[in-house]
Amino acid sequence: MTKAYAAQDASSPLAPFAFETRPLGADDIALDILYCGVCHSDLHTARNEWRNTLYPCVPGHEIVGRVRAVGSAVSAFKPGDLAGVGCMVDSCGHCPACAEGEEQYCGEGFTGTYNGPARPDGGNTYGGYAQAIVVRAAFALHIRHPEKDLAAVAPLLCAGITTYSPLRHWQVGPGSRVGIVGLGGLGHMGVKIAKAMGARVTLFTTSAGKVADGLRLGADEVCISTDREQMARLAGSLDFILNTVAAPHKLDNYLRLLRRDGTMTLVGIPAEPHPSPSVGSLIMGRRQLAGSLIGGIRETQEMLDFCAERGIVSDIEMIRMDQINDAYERMLKNDVKYRFVIDMASLA
Amino acid sequence: MTKAYAAQDASSPLAPFAFETRPLGADDIALDILYCGVCHSDLHTARNEWRNTLYPCVPGHEIVGRVRAVGSAVSAFKPGDLAGVGCMVDSCGHCPACAEGEEQYCGEGFTGTYNGPARPDGGNTYGGYAQAIVVRAAFALHIRHPEKDLAAVAPLLCAGITTYSPLRHWQVGPGSRVGIVGLGGLGHMGVKIAKAMGARVTLFTTSAGKVADGLRLGADEVCISTDREQMARLAGSLDFILNTVAAPHKLDNYLRLLRRDGTMTLVGIPAEPHPSPSVGSLIMGRRQLAGSLIGGIRETQEMLDFCAERGIVSDIEMIRMDQINDAYERMLKNDVKYRFVIDMASLA
Repeated sequence: MTKAYAAQDASSPLAPFAFETRPLGADDIALDILYCGVCHSDLHTARNEWRNTLYPCVPGHEIVGRVRAVGSAVSAFKPGDLAGVGCMVDSCGHCPACAEGEEQYCGEGFTGTYNGPARPDGGNTYGGYAQAIVVRAAFALHIRHPEKDLAAVAPLLCAGITTYSPLRHWQVGPGSRVGIVGLGGLGHMGVKIAKAMGARVTLFTTSAGKVADGLRLGADEVCISTDREQMARLAGSLDFILNTVAAPHKLDNYLRLLRRDGTMTLVGIPAEPHPSPSVGSLIMGRRQLAGSLIGGIRETQEMLDFCAERGIVSDIEMIRMDQINDAYERMLKNDVKYRFVIDMASLA
Repeated sequence: MTKAYAAQDASSPLAPFAFETRPLGADDIALDILYCGVCHSDLHTARNEWRNTLYPCVPGHEIVGRVRAVGSAVSAFKPGDLAGVGCMVDSCGHCPACAEGEEQYCGEGFTGTYNGPARPDGGNTYGGYAQAIVVRAAFALHIRHPEKDLAAVAPLLCAGITTYSPLRHWQVGPGSRVGIVGLGGLGHMGVKIAKAMGARVTLFTTSAGKVADGLRLGADEVCISTDREQMARLAGSLDFILNTVAAPHKLDNYLRLLRRDGTMTLVGIPAEPHPSPSVGSLIMGRRQLAGSLIGGIRETQEMLDFCAERGIVSDIEMIRMDQINDAYERMLKNDVKYRFVIDMASLA
């Protein structure tokens, strides 16, 4: 039996749970999980806040582990390798999105690392708050960071790719002027990655207490977004804004900071809608408001290699598995710099 | 004196007015106006609905006329030429947008054909509801349509370029699947131009009575946007949507029709905001919501030539100048197919 932590319903805290991983298929690898990052989606799902949770729910989709066994048809991994698993463990494989390596936009819906729907029967899947996972090798990633960094690599599997993918898609590079809105799990990765891509990075935060940290993480400047004068000085100056804030807020305040043909991309889904953006802000400057969802498997590997080459990892706070419920409460208060990671040895 | 029609304040009907055109400068041309289209912006401005109207207000920015005189430095036009004037008559000329021929996004603001602000003093400008206009030759367009079509060419100067520019910018061409939302002055030009670019065109209208007309104008199919089944069938199928409807409506209903990486571009500014678009609609499919404002002078000439080569003009209803107030009332009831054009001979 594989030890894990699970939510049994929307209102109970996560508690110990055990299950059998699925038998190792020819295309599968079995992973002993070393570390798992804690994403806000874990909490939403555990508490059924998106009203689609299958129970028992074992969250976790920022997984780093060591390969214990590989299926007969697997050549990309061998036992002892380090491997990662992100938000997806399967997709249809034949729609245009899958054919182009954008499995996150699979026309039939991808299979989540937890909460399914598993193929072919639509059942549940169990995620990374567990000692082990069996997944298709095609959805596993190679980890090339040094072993000392492994815990801090885990959040790259969701927070990293969620910020890397739009920065790449909208062609951020040397000379780009990029805004990152929000300094949390996603935002702090956005700052690091945009800076590593060569952009001039402006971090937007409501919190004066985060200015020093923003600069330390690599921002060229930090703008207090509630300060009208600071915001006005940046009008029309940014090529691209990655907005990581899921709380409803006035998008117009940021759209106005874009240059002609600039794009602001949202990666957080608010529980209540943002105030409706002004059409004038879009028309005056041919600006674009977009969204982006994690990234494909090929691009996730590209992101991991990009980060390994540059020594980029997440800033984390390590916790034991039995601290997860407290960690959720602290996450709700933004009391984490900038990602909790569970040391899975604490489950043993 | 030049005869014209003007609004003297926000609540009075337009009435006869006379003014002196400015002296012909070295870079100017003087145009005897033959026809002027009637744009909804004319009504908004005449009635000060955007709270920025300078009175007296002579509206009109869909102007076709014949050159009467040219300034000493003008070589692009000669007396007797046909010429057009659209929404702009000047811009700063040195900002990045102007340098790239996108004067509509001039960093210092373009000078409107009516309602200014005139350079250098910020005064008023008088538009096309008049017998004549003097403008910088650099902001005048060549008309290459046959003379019999001149009245129907006038609306190209605003409605034509407002739809052509985003269709070009978002690279509509053979093989594109394009949606046009709304069949009015803008929408009917959008259908004709998108079709001429080689796209498969789906027209969206709330009005079952417009289906036959939509097909006649060139749409490959017409979807009644209030019919959920028809809309559901189109989910995820369109590469680009040009949304010409200024009345507030649910943008999500259309965003869902876009393919991955598709864009919906708004060209109408609603008086009240649209319901806030769902962030999920943007994130699932990496969709984009954008805006676009008319087009630059170079692109307006390109559009006029494109339309002249293909025999594309607007569907119009000709009116006399003294019918303008009735025309405004009918426009408010969408009782026009699809653009009023004033025969300026009626002013004599």
